[in-house]
Amino acid sequence: MASLEPRTSNLELDNHLYPVIMAGGSGTRFWPLSRQLFPKQLLRILGEDTLIQQTMRRVVCASAPNRVLISTNPAQAESIRVQLSEWKEALAENFVLEPEGRNTAPAIALVALELLRRDPDAIMLVVPADHIVTGQRAFDAAVSLAATLAGQDYLVTFGIKPIRPETGYGYIRPNLKMTLGTESRLKGHPVSRFVEKPNATKAAQYLKAGDYYWNSGMFVWRATTILDEIRRHQPALSRGIERIGQLIQAGATRQAIDDAYRTLTPVSIDTGVMERSKKAAIVPVSFQWSDVGSWGSLDEVAPKDKGGNVVIGRVVDIGSRRSIVYGDRRLVATIGLTDMVVVDTPDATLVCPKSRAQDVKQLVEILKKQNAPEHLEHLTVQRPWGSYTILEEGLGYKVKRVTVNPGGRLSLQLHHRRSEHWVVITGTARVTRGDEVFDLKVGHSTEIPIETPHRLENPGQETLHIIEVQNGPYLGEDDIVRFQDDYGRGVKREA
Amino acid sequence: MASLEPRTSNLELDNHLYPVIMAGGSGTRFWPLSRQLFPKQLLRILGEDTLIQQTMRRVVCASAPNRVLISTNPAQAESIRVQLSEWKEALAENFVLEPEGRNTAPAIALVALELLRRDPDAIMLVVPADHIVTGQRAFDAAVSLAATLAGQDYLVTFGIKPIRPETGYGYIRPNLKMTLGTESRLKGHPVSRFVEKPNATKAAQYLKAGDYYWNSGMFVWRATTILDEIRRHQPALSRGIERIGQLIQAGATRQAIDDAYRTLTPVSIDTGVMERSKKAAIVPVSFQWSDVGSWGSLDEVAPKDKGGNVVIGRVVDIGSRRSIVYGDRRLVATIGLTDMVVVDTPDATLVCPKSRAQDVKQLVEILKKQNAPEHLEHLTVQRPWGSYTILEEGLGYKVKRVTVNPGGRLSLQLHHRRSEHWVVITGTARVTRGDEVFDLKVGHSTEIPIETPHRLENPGQETLHIIEVQNGPYLGEDDIVRFQDDYGRGVKREA
Repeated sequence: MASLEPRTSNLELDNHLYPVIMAGGSGTRFWPLSRQLFPKQLLRILGEDTLIQQTMRRVVCASAPNRVLISTNPAQAESIRVQLSEWKEALAENFVLEPEGRNTAPAIALVALELLRRDPDAIMLVVPADHIVTGQRAFDAAVSLAATLAGQDYLVTFGIKPIRPETGYGYIRPNLKMTLGTESRLKGHPVSRFVEKPNATKAAQYLKAGDYYWNSGMFVWRATTILDEIRRHQPALSRGIERIGQLIQAGATRQAIDDAYRTLTPVSIDTGVMERSKKAAIVPVSFQWSDVGSWGSLDEVAPKDKGGNVVIGRVVDIGSRRSIVYGDRRLVATIGLTDMVVVDTPDATLVCPKSRAQDVKQLVEILKKQNAPEHLEHLTVQRPWGSYTILEEGLGYKVKRVTVNPGGRLSLQLHHRRSEHWVVITGTARVTRGDEVFDLKVGHSTEIPIETPHRLENPGQETLHIIEVQNGPYLGEDDIVRFQDDYGRGVKREA
Repeated sequence: MASLEPRTSNLELDNHLYPVIMAGGSGTRFWPLSRQLFPKQLLRILGEDTLIQQTMRRVVCASAPNRVLISTNPAQAESIRVQLSEWKEALAENFVLEPEGRNTAPAIALVALELLRRDPDAIMLVVPADHIVTGQRAFDAAVSLAATLAGQDYLVTFGIKPIRPETGYGYIRPNLKMTLGTESRLKGHPVSRFVEKPNATKAAQYLKAGDYYWNSGMFVWRATTILDEIRRHQPALSRGIERIGQLIQAGATRQAIDDAYRTLTPVSIDTGVMERSKKAAIVPVSFQWSDVGSWGSLDEVAPKDKGGNVVIGRVVDIGSRRSIVYGDRRLVATIGLTDMVVVDTPDATLVCPKSRAQDVKQLVEILKKQNAPEHLEHLTVQRPWGSYTILEEGLGYKVKRVTVNPGGRLSLQLHHRRSEHWVVITGTARVTRGDEVFDLKVGHSTEIPIETPHRLENPGQETLHIIEVQNGPYLGEDDIVRFQDDYGRGVKREA
């Protein structure tokens, strides 16, 4: 994936470049494939890698992996660590957690503070975790020019050439009379105008005008510059952030820092700072970009069949055209669809015309209000030791397939209200049950009575799969008392 | 459900009336809800009862349950017996099995032969198992008049007043100048003309003409009359049927009779006999009728929401119109559909415009060619003792939920290639394992090793549910050696 071109950028600037992956989004518009606890960045939408893995590979071309910071929240951090486990050690100390979402400005300020602690000359390359970019060389060249301009105290954004009159993006008009810098065929300019999501008429005008660019949501700036500009344009936010900085320096508790963060007013970096700053600059770029903002946008990035359909999974079709059909393990059969979206997951199916794909967000809001589990997470849930999949739930029982990676082990735990049965279907299970420790092979089973401390471990080289049958009046994941955990998850001892 | 009107029919005729439920259809057009081994007649499409249960209730108003004959095939007989278990004893000897489908004429001839053996004056009321009829009184009146005409040697069909220019049905024109009989407001006439599935122009003409009726596929005739008319118009078929009659009288083996049946040429009773016979008569009826021939036809019979949608199951919708959305246990989310069909089952999902609903048949043909299990049966399979549902299958394992009715028990059996684990989730299981017999309560489990004779039984009043985990290199249902079975299923002893 690394660029084969000679690197053209200033080495000294590169040495201060820190990619920041913004990975706190919820991605409701890709439901039912994305869930609140499994957002779009974790999806394998195109190619072998998930979107956040693709993003990580993209930015480590311009920097070392241990320079990459991940801005996310506690609910998503675990899944992201699992997906980025290839860079596990490099990233170990590089997660900056927002206690809760406050839009992009506070999140960026928090990362800027952390970077200043590490390097007063830090330059941030801020990229969303869930976009698709094609053209690594073009991306690297844009980063390089932007970093040069950032060194001159500009807030640099990447401008994408519009290809349709999209009303969902912001538009930026550069002041083309003034060039701030050049590199290869790229030029940087001051921004003459920002326009937030225009109406259809305006969007068509901007497309026709030819000198408006989409705001890609990727930015390059010095940590000091962005904090200065936040201070200038969002003084209240800035005071809140400074207080948090002081708390961090004074070694305050996590709780105190989180409480301070929660008092911040949500502000987006675009409307709160970029649109107001005199230091805004734009580098119109040449790489291909998509924010894959909805099921409909898969069209722009995914390969199509003869009928113009994007078809993923086990699908049998008769004569559909320009549709998106996403199947999982089950069979999806379609006849004569035109411009439709069908997404089939183990616990939820979505059907809508492409033109209504943006309304999936509204649908997820309805599910949230109904407290429907399908908005929150998948039947398969990732864990640091592997994953589990709920096969069936009914009154008084739950059936799971549990997958434990080689060397992985679950916490030493007990349950007050349920017994469990484990049957090994692949691999070898090392079972701790009360005072006993024993190994179970394929086709063998054990019972874990209520209140019995137990642990499941995979001592082998092969992945372990077991079927777990739970019985009891209450089967929530929160009926767990942990005595020891390899992954630093809350170990409680009850009174 | 019984008519409250005084019965107007001739009692003597009633005494010879035998309803014949034609239950051999495969119903591919209701896939994925119907399957080859679970055809439309077994579906609960409207109301509490399945279509065959509704049909049974309808015909026992005109006759005693032990007068009802069921014409079906061995693959479907078990499921039908389960669904008609309310009349278990009355129907015990009344299943007439075709060894394989030869269209309606041979099936009807076979039943006529059987009826002649029981009652030389038998009058048959032939009804498909999978149609919907609304208006019991009107149905009873039509049967009564038709039986009178059948007593005069007519082959009587029920004519339905067309409500749209349907091209999928046959049309019948009565000779209105001649009345064969009257009862209440109904009249019987000779048939002047049959037209098989016309084109759209002709269908529109017939609808406009006002004196054409749809052929409902329901018939009333004497067993001797229909056999005579088969002899006249289908002499080859008649000779085959006579040979089968002789075999039956001579006490031939099932195998010999089946072999003879397989040599018959498939012929439909409509085109092969009714359209050729001079004895054809028609009773235009007043009850409402639908053959629910495809998903699109649900419109005619099912209640609709404000948007004109037929919605069944757990569905969340934003603004759909005139669509049919059928969900099962999983969530189905729809946005802005117009005239669409969405059917979601545990292992297959169908999406198509209503206008293409007839093409589901073609889709099932493709699945059949692909040998896809989804064309054949559901993940839930009915058995005489209860049912089982496949929760997951993978390499070397299968997970099932097994449901055993109170008092039900599986055969005493063993498997050569798999071990099994049973965990009780509801009720009490009586387990035979080798020489042991013991009871298992909720939350307890047992292992059944390979080659060990075993049996599962529900000794309680409550339904028993267990989770069964199978392990082994081969997990087909045919790895079974049965030693004893309560339901007369093949008991083998291996050498």
